[in-house]
Amino acid sequence: MKALLPPRIDLLSDTLTRPTPEMRAAMSAAEVGDDVFGEDPTVNRLEEHISAMLGKEAALFMPSGTMSNLIGLLVHCGKGDEYICEAGCHIFNNEQAGYAQVGGIAVRPIPGERGLIRVDQLQEMVRPDNDHLPRTRLICLEQTHNRAAGSILPYDSVAEVCTWAKEQDLARHLDGARLFNAVVASGISAADWARHFDTVSVCFSKGLGAPVGSALCGPKDLVKRARRYRKMLGGGMRQIGILAAAVLYALEHHIDRLAEDHAKAQVLADAIRRAPGLTLQCDQVDSNIVIFEVDAELGTAKEYCDSLLERGVRLYPISRQKVRAVTHLDVSMAECEEVAEVLSS
Amino acid sequence: MKALLPPRIDLLSDTLTRPTPEMRAAMSAAEVGDDVFGEDPTVNRLEEHISAMLGKEAALFMPSGTMSNLIGLLVHCGKGDEYICEAGCHIFNNEQAGYAQVGGIAVRPIPGERGLIRVDQLQEMVRPDNDHLPRTRLICLEQTHNRAAGSILPYDSVAEVCTWAKEQDLARHLDGARLFNAVVASGISAADWARHFDTVSVCFSKGLGAPVGSALCGPKDLVKRARRYRKMLGGGMRQIGILAAAVLYALEHHIDRLAEDHAKAQVLADAIRRAPGLTLQCDQVDSNIVIFEVDAELGTAKEYCDSLLERGVRLYPISRQKVRAVTHLDVSMAECEEVAEVLSS
Amino acid sequence: MKALLPPRIDLLSDTLTRPTPEMRAAMSAAEVGDDVFGEDPTVNRLEEHISAMLGKEAALFMPSGTMSNLIGLLVHCGKGDEYICEAGCHIFNNEQAGYAQVGGIAVRPIPGERGLIRVDQLQEMVRPDNDHLPRTRLICLEQTHNRAAGSILPYDSVAEVCTWAKEQDLARHLDGARLFNAVVASGISAADWARHFDTVSVCFSKGLGAPVGSALCGPKDLVKRARRYRKMLGGGMRQIGILAAAVLYALEHHIDRLAEDHAKAQVLADAIRRAPGLTLQCDQVDSNIVIFEVDAELGTAKEYCDSLLERGVRLYPISRQKVRAVTHLDVSMAECEEVAEVLSS
Amino acid sequence: MKALLPPRIDLLSDTLTRPTPEMRAAMSAAEVGDDVFGEDPTVNRLEEHISAMLGKEAALFMPSGTMSNLIGLLVHCGKGDEYICEAGCHIFNNEQAGYAQVGGIAVRPIPGERGLIRVDQLQEMVRPDNDHLPRTRLICLEQTHNRAAGSILPYDSVAEVCTWAKEQDLARHLDGARLFNAVVASGISAADWARHFDTVSVCFSKGLGAPVGSALCGPKDLVKRARRYRKMLGGGMRQIGILAAAVLYALEHHIDRLAEDHAKAQVLADAIRRAPGLTLQCDQVDSNIVIFEVDAELGTAKEYCDSLLERGVRLYPISRQKVRAVTHLDVSMAECEEVAEVLSS
Repeated sequence: MKALLPPRIDLLSDTLTRPTPEMRAAMSAAEVGDDVFGEDPTVNRLEEHISAMLGKEAALFMPSGTMSNLIGLLVHCGKGDEYICEAGCHIFNNEQAGYAQVGGIAVRPIPGERGLIRVDQLQEMVRPDNDHLPRTRLICLEQTHNRAAGSILPYDSVAEVCTWAKEQDLARHLDGARLFNAVVASGISAADWARHFDTVSVCFSKGLGAPVGSALCGPKDLVKRARRYRKMLGGGMRQIGILAAAVLYALEHHIDRLAEDHAKAQVLADAIRRAPGLTLQCDQVDSNIVIFEVDAELGTAKEYCDSLLERGVRLYPISRQKVRAVTHLDVSMAECEEVAEVLSS
Repeated sequence: MKALLPPRIDLLSDTLTRPTPEMRAAMSAAEVGDDVFGEDPTVNRLEEHISAMLGKEAALFMPSGTMSNLIGLLVHCGKGDEYICEAGCHIFNNEQAGYAQVGGIAVRPIPGERGLIRVDQLQEMVRPDNDHLPRTRLICLEQTHNRAAGSILPYDSVAEVCTWAKEQDLARHLDGARLFNAVVASGISAADWARHFDTVSVCFSKGLGAPVGSALCGPKDLVKRARRYRKMLGGGMRQIGILAAAVLYALEHHIDRLAEDHAKAQVLADAIRRAPGLTLQCDQVDSNIVIFEVDAELGTAKEYCDSLLERGVRLYPISRQKVRAVTHLDVSMAECEEVAEVLSS
Repeated sequence: MKALLPPRIDLLSDTLTRPTPEMRAAMSAAEVGDDVFGEDPTVNRLEEHISAMLGKEAALFMPSGTMSNLIGLLVHCGKGDEYICEAGCHIFNNEQAGYAQVGGIAVRPIPGERGLIRVDQLQEMVRPDNDHLPRTRLICLEQTHNRAAGSILPYDSVAEVCTWAKEQDLARHLDGARLFNAVVASGISAADWARHFDTVSVCFSKGLGAPVGSALCGPKDLVKRARRYRKMLGGGMRQIGILAAAVLYALEHHIDRLAEDHAKAQVLADAIRRAPGLTLQCDQVDSNIVIFEVDAELGTAKEYCDSLLERGVRLYPISRQKVRAVTHLDVSMAECEEVAEVLSS
Repeated sequence: MKALLPPRIDLLSDTLTRPTPEMRAAMSAAEVGDDVFGEDPTVNRLEEHISAMLGKEAALFMPSGTMSNLIGLLVHCGKGDEYICEAGCHIFNNEQAGYAQVGGIAVRPIPGERGLIRVDQLQEMVRPDNDHLPRTRLICLEQTHNRAAGSILPYDSVAEVCTWAKEQDLARHLDGARLFNAVVASGISAADWARHFDTVSVCFSKGLGAPVGSALCGPKDLVKRARRYRKMLGGGMRQIGILAAAVLYALEHHIDRLAEDHAKAQVLADAIRRAPGLTLQCDQVDSNIVIFEVDAELGTAKEYCDSLLERGVRLYPISRQKVRAVTHLDVSMAECEEVAEVLSS
């Protein structure tokens, strides 16, 4: 799916956003130090800022959401421990099973609806203490849920699942790669979402538009252990304040504007609803991700995307017949309207 | 669930069988050598015998079915590789996720019916080649299927799933812990079942009545690698011909008699069908395992089993409301009839 | 090094011993149960017996010394923890680095003299608390020391190293594969040797002459965790009382006789001292292992052993120029004298 | 060792360098894309540039030297494989044994002189093919050698060790964290050093003065596998051209100037030679690292460094009595002369 020429309108992912001139200026002016020694003032400022936003004691800047999630699992689970997740979630499907490779951790995926698992599905999922069985330690949720087309897990359901998990002595981790999309769409604060979880990973290089970075937030002792794991994996970096400055800028200026990305997604969704041969995976579009199925008569998802690419538009064929479009900072409403026309024509 | 006094009639598991006098005599007379150096003649004879029975090039004697399955996965999958299995299978649930702990291997469990997964459920389960994704390498089936109440996967379904898997370049492993029960009940030979798989593990210390042991059967090169893994895990033993002699005796004398265990299971099943408050998990009982649900009005499964234990009968409470009974060599038909009476009274 | 015909006099290893008629009788009469459920009375008796002999709270029967050592490390060390050992020890060299494969454990090998490391070599070996460094957790000793030609680490040195280790908060594990050889040769009891260690593994299938088995001894909580690891690795076996009975017999009848093996080793050593072109690795021979260097003019160790094999004698070429001979129950003094003659001729 | 006030003259490490105004300008102007999709033009340019400099087919940008080395080991060694290294090297001591944690890889450390191991020490270090033994796969060298006080391994010795390793079918990895220091000090090109190795990691955030980054260079197929591992570990980043631009600037402008750092180190070394109570670890100082021992009469290394810190100078106490000073871009010759005066007074 690599474009020979850069596509004119690129909806491949919201990871594609390039830093704006203002963000570049912030990076350029950043005060820096050696973050491996804990001496980068901008990183320290960012870690304080994001942990405060999420109502957590501490935070750790990470090179990627994949590392935040991997370490999020490692601080909760040892070898042979098992975590429960929804079967379509990113950690289970899209991170190369790093939890098993690095941590020897097992997984119990539960098929959910629009990314959500219900408490009644979980009743028999906590394994008793028995030398034949893995130990159930953790439940992971994902908000917004990427493979469920950016759907937002309802607040009450999240609260209910997490309350149940706490009663079972399970730890709770939130893959909040796109948590701020949920914040903006729901009007519920990041801290309110986060209060149900021990650890939360958030990503800055998606809709927020920072070039790089993620954070793992949680209690001090776990973040201290996370810091040690980050060093081991090779995620300890030096004068990284340059990147942290971009993130601080993004947190100040790019959260509210996620609403625009959601509006653009609605434009795409409307076009797909009208388009012959295209069907939305979830008719309801909650945030900035739209997934639709291509009727086999139009070819495979890949063929469909190839033909769009010739017209300068890049979408992502995520399975044989499914296509994903993600709206973001670098694609305007006008461009989305243009794509909408292409799709529905 | 440990009995204070040995229970009079013990249906906890078919692993409980004690060697018969004839089997003890065979053990007593066994010629032995140091099997770590490949010099135990009885073990060598057993390995030739069982590989021939299964139509495979080679076999390796193992201390347990857990080790056979663990190494079965290790020879097919490296770190970050993923295997597909039915969600209720023993390897996924009852072996402490050794595949993840030792091998860093990931798993994709698919909920099946009576232990079987259908090809149409598998269509999107082989992951494309992409640096975000685990690599799908292997499919595992279990025959008979323990948690599905000893059900026998139909031959044609097994063939169909394995043919599909081969077309996808997936390896195929059979957890044949109770394969000989399926052989006897179906009239299909072990080699015929085994031909659909690259590797097959079989267990000798269940219905066959040998005190210890299992074998992993497959192509020479994989068995050679299995031998190396066995040494690493600590499964290389010395004058183990003593145990192999018991197994050879069992293979000669204890296969056909598994039919009696199946008949005993029918007696139990009939009683459960009649018993108020008890419901068979699968109405059809295929082999020597019976699983039933205890109505909450009768208490939990554990409470129910405790009350049976007071009457000298031991069954296994395998979940909150489910109980398992397994018939075997050391419990006679008359004793099963006695249990039937207790259950239905 | 596999013999086409069984060698007449086999000094390859003391693992080769075959059960005596009396031991076979004990096995034949053994009361058994399912040890996975903790219900094998003979195994339970053995575990009580060996833990009492070593002055430890608990013991766990294992299929091999390799598994005892592997689990001995696993109960002390997590991923990224480091153990210190002498560079020639068996765990570091001869167990396929299972500690790294299964446990992600690191190692700090220190070259010792005759298998012993001195406290002054250890001074800078405990790593400070720092996110760049592995965590030093454990020290392992080996008694007798196989690659140091069965040398016995002096009691006072062992005590000194262990006292130092305890002061540094390091755990202490003894690979006591041939501890009973040290007991007999030194006149110091197993419990006296063991008191300096948290965990001790002992092997029953070497000089003691049992066909199979080892035990890991230590505090109750660690042995409970060891039991869980044993199940995961596939070392949980069923009616294993058959094997435990052999071990109980060996512990009653085969300890004192190890002195005879030591006397046989002296006979071999004397011959080697006289033999042109052969040089003892350690001039002092402490127990039942003799290692000597073959002058290159006599060919390589392998060639030298091949020529012996033609005369019916099997020794072990353990490196390019080194050969090992191990005396044991199944080789008589007269046969050793015959070998002595062959060697010195 | 964290300074309350930033130290005036900071010789803790050459990782401390902050980007110069010119480097910041280069970063500010960098063209970027999403490097996870391989679409960041500046990163692509850097990878081509550094692989050409080292004469390798391909290169991969990494967040840190720790990740480059970890993945360098992972592409050569599987579980239970063993690599040989000098006992004082960084990979073995200072990277948390990630190779064992993540890769299940074992290690054979050999004590060297000034960081170098000789071929005669290696003769018996390649293990034969035997199921008891780890498999020897790889040898790692480090250039310049950090713990050996920045010593440069002589070219002929490196060539000899690598030639021997190749003859043994061992892969060869160079931890070239400070390879460019060796290049400048020896006058031997990076490609000439690199030709003896399959893979080479180089670090940009040390003497070269870039804020972040490292590269792993080697054959295409290994770099492709390295890319997959980088994703799994969480080292895949997005618009990282910002950082790559700094590295490209450094490679153009900051290599030759490493000679100045070496000259500064000589000034420090001269002072230490004169100073009562201080002794250079290696009297010869090859590059930008100086390590010296503090006489116990002056207190511990930590106490000595604390007293320096009060005078505004930060050095690194690396063990009980040893102190390290590293010269770099952000400390001028005049400042080093000031430190020299403090040390020798």
